Amino acid sequence: MKKNLLVAQSGGPTAAINATLAGVIGQAMKEEQIDQVYGACYGIQGVLEQKFVNLTEKVDTEEKLEKLKRTPAAALGSCRFKLNDIKEDDSQYQEIVDILHKMNIGYFVYIGGNDSMDTVAKLSAYCKEKGIEDIKVIGGPKTIDNDLCGIDHCPGFGSAAKYISTVFCELEQEITVYEPKNVIIVEMMGRHAGWLTAAAALAEGKNGNVPYLVYLEETPFSLDRFIDDVKEKLESTNAVLVAVSEGVHDKEGRFLCEQEGSRELDVFGHTKLSGTGKILEEAVRAKIGCKVRSIELNLLQRCAGHILSKTDIEESGNLGANAVKLAVAGESGLMSSLTRVSDAPYTIEYSGVDIREVANKEKKIPVEWINEAGNGVKEELTTYLTPLVQGEVSSIYEDGMPSYIVLK
Amino acid sequence: MKKNLLVAQSGGPTAAINATLAGVIGQAMKEEQIDQVYGACYGIQGVLEQKFVNLTEKVDTEEKLEKLKRTPAAALGSCRFKLNDIKEDDSQYQEIVDILHKMNIGYFVYIGGNDSMDTVAKLSAYCKEKGIEDIKVIGGPKTIDNDLCGIDHCPGFGSAAKYISTVFCELEQEITVYEPKNVIIVEMMGRHAGWLTAAAALAEGKNGNVPYLVYLEETPFSLDRFIDDVKEKLESTNAVLVAVSEGVHDKEGRFLCEQEGSRELDVFGHTKLSGTGKILEEAVRAKIGCKVRSIELNLLQRCAGHILSKTDIEESGNLGANAVKLAVAGESGLMSSLTRVSDAPYTIEYSGVDIREVANKEKKIPVEWINEAGNGVKEELTTYLTPLVQGEVSSIYEDGMPSYIVLK
Repeated sequence: MKKNLLVAQSGGPTAAINATLAGVIGQAMKEEQIDQVYGACYGIQGVLEQKFVNLTEKVDTEEKLEKLKRTPAAALGSCRFKLNDIKEDDSQYQEIVDILHKMNIGYFVYIGGNDSMDTVAKLSAYCKEKGIEDIKVIGGPKTIDNDLCGIDHCPGFGSAAKYISTVFCELEQEITVYEPKNVIIVEMMGRHAGWLTAAAALAEGKNGNVPYLVYLEETPFSLDRFIDDVKEKLESTNAVLVAVSEGVHDKEGRFLCEQEGSRELDVFGHTKLSGTGKILEEAVRAKIGCKVRSIELNLLQRCAGHILSKTDIEESGNLGANAVKLAVAGESGLMSSLTRVSDAPYTIEYSGVDIREVANKEKKIPVEWINEAGNGVKEELTTYLTPLVQGEVSSIYEDGMPSYIVLK
Repeated sequence: MKKNLLVAQSGGPTAAINATLAGVIGQAMKEEQIDQVYGACYGIQGVLEQKFVNLTEKVDTEEKLEKLKRTPAAALGSCRFKLNDIKEDDSQYQEIVDILHKMNIGYFVYIGGNDSMDTVAKLSAYCKEKGIEDIKVIGGPKTIDNDLCGIDHCPGFGSAAKYISTVFCELEQEITVYEPKNVIIVEMMGRHAGWLTAAAALAEGKNGNVPYLVYLEETPFSLDRFIDDVKEKLESTNAVLVAVSEGVHDKEGRFLCEQEGSRELDVFGHTKLSGTGKILEEAVRAKIGCKVRSIELNLLQRCAGHILSKTDIEESGNLGANAVKLAVAGESGLMSSLTRVSDAPYTIEYSGVDIREVANKEKKIPVEWINEAGNGVKEELTTYLTPLVQGEVSSIYEDGMPSYIVLK
């Protein structure tokens, strides 16, 4: 008997999470075992609240599927909702199972990051424990942070990395327009891993010779050493570009912005950071006195549908399709994944990894890929990053404006 | 006898100023009366310091010309340098004339905004007064601010407007991802005119139904009324997008950021603004208490070579070519300009306007194009803006990164 497939999105938006959704829908429509494709709006919370849309009807042409692929953010909506601790109270899990049974869902693909993979791990473990074999739960990876374990790199990251490195190419043109000494500091997202910030290094030397300083979470940050670094660069040049992660911290692990600014917690208990770039800007102004400006890329870096990595969009779609294939093959409790076979030529293979190897873990940049001074990256890191930003696609434009598909 | 042409760039960079430069070079190479094309690096200051490059040699293929067209910022470099008051001391003007004579320059095209057109006005007036007839001085318009008089719209503005409206389309996808009430405030550049901020309105209603609030310099701004506006919108929706000009001010003309923050002056004596979006963010947090985030588009809005308006890039090039044609036809003291013949079909004509009608003046948005409440735009404004963002081009990418031409 045919079963339906349910797909939902969770965690922070990316410019490629809808490409994965499109991959899921496209593949599900090809599978003989699958009848209707449903989407839950606003993640697992939307499943509990039974906010469903029929995607077989809503995305019924190749044109719509292509448009969805190039629509940024999360077309089904997302949530930051943590299921109850399964050991303390498993009623939510049974509630989800009941809803899925009621809707004849045999396959559930949940697209998200670390926290979302925790949901997949718990739900699939619950099904296994209770002997519920007619629901297959598969994770679809997604995060601009690139910090998921069990996968070579994360869908969404390549497009964010391309946006960031493109912005650095552009700012390098900007900063050399005037002659007086000038420092531009750009702050990137990334709570505990510096991958996004490292992407800035891809731009260095491509269109000029402005020196870059790149500060990542993986090595301790010192404000004094930062000022010395900038001073040293300004001795031989008029322009310096600084890339800094919002989460840089000292040896004791105290975030720069915690030391100088305010501290807030999000619902997951993570420290909410902001203002790192601003603190560095003020330090340069006070201690060096040259022209300086800080830019926070903010939300722009995760929703820039107008400059997407073709490689990322293709892989994101394939990972969605692969998730469906895994589910239909009877797998559950896996995350759709990819392995890099070689850098040159860039070759990858799709696979599935045990979700327990992914949930609640973080993949940081290997410290041996960062230079000794802790202010730049080594060739190993750019070799890793370069294939991920290859090729360009963008949202589809109509009458001068991006045209998206709206599903909610 | 053939003469050489000199071209230079001045004022703030834009994503299209090099398209105008490319237009100048391309046309100059076609003109029989012109021998070599020289560029002065770093504007009029570079002329005085004799920092010249030979553009006939540097940009010697169609491919390089095309790459230059799509290179953001100002490939020749720029300056913020005000010539001495001609009535007090005209020695700088004679110095420039001597340098131009020495280099056999018969045509000088100076690309810039209001302040730069002041340079063109003074230099051409000096030549006229002194009977120097063998140097023709023509202005090439440029500014993302769109505030030049004597021209329907400014080259560089269309691309910045396209970038801004595209970003708003993307942020609209972002802001609807989560269910809780959410406000995003985006601060645009524009010292005394709200054109850039108005461009945000082009995105409203294109991909959803998030309400926009748009605050322009042209109407007085009240923080209390802003909070009331946001509260009112949040009564019927969960998401509000706010577009605000850095230069919004109260009835007495006091900038919002002057009232609440610090005040600095640039070399032209203009108040240097920042922090308007941040002030609004803090106000929403304090007085409404919902989720809120402010984003400052900062330099990104003037150097986004990865999303250019095709219309803008073509017109910018044509305005450069038109400047050369005017000079060769014996004109001096004009700015290359364009007039809109009709909105639909969008038709324009190229012309030349007396530089004195342009220099040191500012064109604001007509207040009758702004709604009564002062928080949105009327159809007249979107009708004016729509043709300017039509079509997409981007920088040329090589190996995943933008590839520019470096002239300095």
